[in-house]
Amino acid sequence: MEIIQDIREMQRRASELRLQGRRIAVVPTMGAFHEGHLALMRMARQRADVVIATLFVNPLQFGPNEDYERYPRDWEGDLHKADSVGVNILFAPAVEAMYPNGYQTYVVVTELSRPLEGAIRPGHFRGVTTVVTKLFHLTCPHVAVFGQKDAQQALIIRRMVRDLNFDIEVLIHPIVREPDGLAMSSRNVYLSAEERAQAPALYRSLRWAEEAIRAGERNPEKVIEGMRRILRREAPLGHIDYVAVCDTETLDELVELRPGREVLVALAVRFGSTRLLDNVLLTVPE
Amino acid sequence: MEIIQDIREMQRRASELRLQGRRIAVVPTMGAFHEGHLALMRMARQRADVVIATLFVNPLQFGPNEDYERYPRDWEGDLHKADSVGVNILFAPAVEAMYPNGYQTYVVVTELSRPLEGAIRPGHFRGVTTVVTKLFHLTCPHVAVFGQKDAQQALIIRRMVRDLNFDIEVLIHPIVREPDGLAMSSRNVYLSAEERAQAPALYRSLRWAEEAIRAGERNPEKVIEGMRRILRREAPLGHIDYVAVCDTETLDELVELRPGREVLVALAVRFGSTRLLDNVLLTVPE
Repeated sequence: MEIIQDIREMQRRASELRLQGRRIAVVPTMGAFHEGHLALMRMARQRADVVIATLFVNPLQFGPNEDYERYPRDWEGDLHKADSVGVNILFAPAVEAMYPNGYQTYVVVTELSRPLEGAIRPGHFRGVTTVVTKLFHLTCPHVAVFGQKDAQQALIIRRMVRDLNFDIEVLIHPIVREPDGLAMSSRNVYLSAEERAQAPALYRSLRWAEEAIRAGERNPEKVIEGMRRILRREAPLGHIDYVAVCDTETLDELVELRPGREVLVALAVRFGSTRLLDNVLLTVPE
Repeated sequence: MEIIQDIREMQRRASELRLQGRRIAVVPTMGAFHEGHLALMRMARQRADVVIATLFVNPLQFGPNEDYERYPRDWEGDLHKADSVGVNILFAPAVEAMYPNGYQTYVVVTELSRPLEGAIRPGHFRGVTTVVTKLFHLTCPHVAVFGQKDAQQALIIRRMVRDLNFDIEVLIHPIVREPDGLAMSSRNVYLSAEERAQAPALYRSLRWAEEAIRAGERNPEKVIEGMRRILRREAPLGHIDYVAVCDTETLDELVELRPGREVLVALAVRFGSTRLLDNVLLTVPE
């Protein structure tokens, strides 16, 4: 596996690979790789000749009181894991190279960035769309792979790619879970033993919602109420940031669950200062 | 000359040209070609194998009370002129294809978009940087050519290209002028005979500023005062939007003219609802 830290070198290599007719897939990450990341890399491996994983903890997507400084970092472990799943190039640029003095250009997706995570983390998605635009320009991919755990991010990136005419196919990999159902996340390492024991309640509440809708529940408020009840009971250490039943394209909160409709059920729960996200996509049965 | 209106077709062609190793230059325009545009196209011709001129009157860069609807259009004349200077592809997409329903992604350059034109036309540069990003993605250029008449725009695009890591060389062509000094602009056709007769005073005031600085004037306020005096006297039909002496990188207004410093002297004057821009770049003599 080749390691590139210089942004010009990355762009030169990508442009050279393009000219050779090689198909490039990129997997943008913030490192601290777990099975979720590796699944994205394996998916990329199957869809391209050259897999580039980017590893960049992007300060622009962290709020002033968030965990940028203490975000988990594991350089040696990451190298080993990325190499083991067939990543060809690991691109890990320096913050000063990505945001030099005088930096002032931002990419924003407006409506989709407002609800859910956007309401709680102002500026977060602006940071994401800006860095992803830069990483796309530096790695020239044909395909880019993101994870469904960050459902709103996935939707926003798809929208950005379409709106700005990036010639890139966006693939979204399903959520990878621990055996007890907890969605894999680099932030899971922050959890205390007790919090970790309660965290699988997130997925249990989502499974309950799926089941309730499958059994005929058509009132989103009832679904949300039931999920909140489960979370309060089974994860009393958690603070619920939101539980939402949304349109999968616009993220508008739904007022009724029409048969045949694709629905995103999403939630965010805070344990101390550790925020966990999870979601399920489902189609309301006829 | 090939004419392409479909955005997918444009992207397919550009990507094919890239794979063939051809060097692509793009000249983004809003049509109504005059000698200024043709000079950009000739410059592009010398720097690339394939010249793409884009012709798109971009609604996103016009304010609600601006001249989007009545912006000059001359399809037949434009085809003939572009062809005559060696443009290979004229790309003229439809508004609905560029901004389909649900469109919501914008590129913004913050600080540089605030003063001068930005203060008078809120949202204008957001429209410019967004459409230029889209056009870059659709035409995959190695080189892009813009005109110095829109000095702030040129600076903003350079900044955007650097900040977002576009792998594109930006060339700025000097202002092309009528024999009496008036900077060429598609909007000059709006001027009445009387306004047209007064319009060359803009460039005369800029020449006067150059001369004053060359002769030792080091106080920007004095330079601005003198220019305003000339404009009031020689272009009484004009309303001065601004006259500014700025840093060429940051557009900060200067408080003193230090020897060796590169300086942008820029102005905007309105005749009725027609806004004319002009500027000169100069180095303060030692």
